[in-house]
Amino acid sequence: MAVFRALSALREATPLVQCLTNSVVMETTANVLLAAGASPAMVDTPEESAEFAAIASGVLINAGTPSAERYAGMREAVRGATAAGTPWVVDPVGAGGLTHRTRFLLSLVDASPTAVRGNASEITALAGLGAGGRGVDTTDAVADALPAATELAERTGGVVAVSGDVDLIVSPGRVTWLTSGDPLLQRVIGTGCSLGALTAAYLSVEGVDDHDAVLAAHAHVGAAGQLAAHRSNGPGSFAVAWLDALAEVDDSRIGDLVSVEEA
Amino acid sequence: MAVFRALSALREATPLVQCLTNSVVMETTANVLLAAGASPAMVDTPEESAEFAAIASGVLINAGTPSAERYAGMREAVRGATAAGTPWVVDPVGAGGLTHRTRFLLSLVDASPTAVRGNASEITALAGLGAGGRGVDTTDAVADALPAATELAERTGGVVAVSGDVDLIVSPGRVTWLTSGDPLLQRVIGTGCSLGALTAAYLSVEGVDDHDAVLAAHAHVGAAGQLAAHRSNGPGSFAVAWLDALAEVDDSRIGDLVSVEEA
Amino acid sequence: MAVFRALSALREATPLVQCLTNSVVMETTANVLLAAGASPAMVDTPEESAEFAAIASGVLINAGTPSAERYAGMREAVRGATAAGTPWVVDPVGAGGLTHRTRFLLSLVDASPTAVRGNASEITALAGLGAGGRGVDTTDAVADALPAATELAERTGGVVAVSGDVDLIVSPGRVTWLTSGDPLLQRVIGTGCSLGALTAAYLSVEGVDDHDAVLAAHAHVGAAGQLAAHRSNGPGSFAVAWLDALAEVDDSRIGDLVSVEEA
Repeated sequence: MAVFRALSALREATPLVQCLTNSVVMETTANVLLAAGASPAMVDTPEESAEFAAIASGVLINAGTPSAERYAGMREAVRGATAAGTPWVVDPVGAGGLTHRTRFLLSLVDASPTAVRGNASEITALAGLGAGGRGVDTTDAVADALPAATELAERTGGVVAVSGDVDLIVSPGRVTWLTSGDPLLQRVIGTGCSLGALTAAYLSVEGVDDHDAVLAAHAHVGAAGQLAAHRSNGPGSFAVAWLDALAEVDDSRIGDLVSVEEA
Repeated sequence: MAVFRALSALREATPLVQCLTNSVVMETTANVLLAAGASPAMVDTPEESAEFAAIASGVLINAGTPSAERYAGMREAVRGATAAGTPWVVDPVGAGGLTHRTRFLLSLVDASPTAVRGNASEITALAGLGAGGRGVDTTDAVADALPAATELAERTGGVVAVSGDVDLIVSPGRVTWLTSGDPLLQRVIGTGCSLGALTAAYLSVEGVDDHDAVLAAHAHVGAAGQLAAHRSNGPGSFAVAWLDALAEVDDSRIGDLVSVEEA
Repeated sequence: MAVFRALSALREATPLVQCLTNSVVMETTANVLLAAGASPAMVDTPEESAEFAAIASGVLINAGTPSAERYAGMREAVRGATAAGTPWVVDPVGAGGLTHRTRFLLSLVDASPTAVRGNASEITALAGLGAGGRGVDTTDAVADALPAATELAERTGGVVAVSGDVDLIVSPGRVTWLTSGDPLLQRVIGTGCSLGALTAAYLSVEGVDDHDAVLAAHAHVGAAGQLAAHRSNGPGSFAVAWLDALAEVDDSRIGDLVSVEEA
């Protein structure tokens, strides 16, 4: 598929992705970006975040382990990204289940992120249509989140992705279903959070529209998961093989492994 | 052994473990919980910790890299866990060797944790019976820590586990010795810290008494270490194989690999 | 070479390295120290850092993800290390590209660190001779950084190492070029940051002069990278094999794998 040519373009550009993300997944997120063909920079303090967002190719805002200082850094990064026209992605980890965090995330949504990527519970909670899950787990099925994703895409004018057994990618006027990946991706921490960072990387690639960029990021992660599942004996070896596969797959291999349906 | 049936019950329940832990081992701790059959949630800020402790299955408080904000979060988590009756575990990393931290840990012990898990130096320091080690290393042998563990178990009314070459598990009126594991567990960061988190997971399992739950967590980690040692060429491949083995072992396999002696 | 006998001495001493480092690489840094034969302690708060620097064998100050609290901890660690005569290393991650951070790093340089280890852009920026790179990437070639490294070594009276395709190690009156390593080291986060920590470990070894200690640390990391490259299929498996190789290599193997040239 034409959309997966975005991967070659990404590797050509090696976009610099500024990650303001939770303390649990920082290392994995950086390794995923490096393996996939991008370059990570975990610049997340209030003093540096706006300055760096102006030179970064893309910005990730992930709401896990939200210290007061990192929240202040996130507001600065959004300010810098908006002023410079840098694409930015929100990963609403834990939205709905926690009061303080949900309020912060709703304020980010009001600032019109280029994309939002979460699980069904989180997207439903952000749209104000559900009660949310138990922390980072998802308790709503992806298909049930279609109304919420549609509402959120209309509100932000951007792309909304719901990750799960299948992935749902929605922007105003377009709905795409992606089948890819492997259940072992749920047994390794940070695979979803890293996908958020890779989404920011793809959004920075010239000549690829935003909806296609989000789709390509999900397909890259999912296809690598399928390859890794065949080469591993459990979650530990899967995580290692997945990084190898993120570096190994190319456009045509991804096209063979995943299945895309426009609704 | 009957006690290891706790593993099947854990996997059935997939308990949600709230981890307030040090920045070094967050990722490994989450991956250990996922591999073993539980679900991690690193919720550790003052704003969210009490709210989350009320819905979590168990709570881990690990004192490494103790920022002021995380310490405030820990106090909130203990408050929330105590109010909701959620079991909670203290891992007293570095107790004895550092003034500020030791004072904080002693205040946690006064709040009667469900279990305390540390090395011989740390348990000895918490009981006020020794000078402590050099940071995270242990310099006292496990057997020498029996009086300290006994004293601490009496004081808290909970379970006290001393990890080392052999593991010692003490509660008021009961002392158990566990032989399991492999020296390579000491060459990988976070294996002990992750054991603290897994202890919180086991303590939440219905129908298993607290002493047995702590014993089962230690046996699970140790047995997986024995399997991993046969499949690795050094500390890097050991860490990977250990995660695989944590997911692979079942009750009867653990029973074959470890040795338990009631004193 | 005689210099690589430092590795045996390091394993004999198992130095305790206090790491004040960025949140992204803490786990990898600890695992590298453990694999290589040292012992990590991530003690980085303002309350504990000076106290611990007095008992640590060596101290690493790495400027990534610089929270206000960690910067305060770093100042305390430098104070404690200086008072106790503990060797300390600065890794100036991102120097030049970010205003706030660069100012902080220049103040550290004024305190005469035992060694500074960075890439060409960072060393050039610290010496005041260049504009710096884009975050953690290097955009200047190693050889071009020789004047900056020389100037910085004169100013601090210590050792300055420039890491890259080749490594350049400079102290007042001595310049050494090291050829070792593999390009895959650039595809895994934290390999450079961990080298900074290992440099602090080597600097603590008795009977090895500082220039030789810094050279030995770089050769250890590079030789392990060469071994790992032969045993991996991508960045994920490389990272695992590299940890195994850090534990496996000995003095004579390193001497066979790397090439040293005194200028």
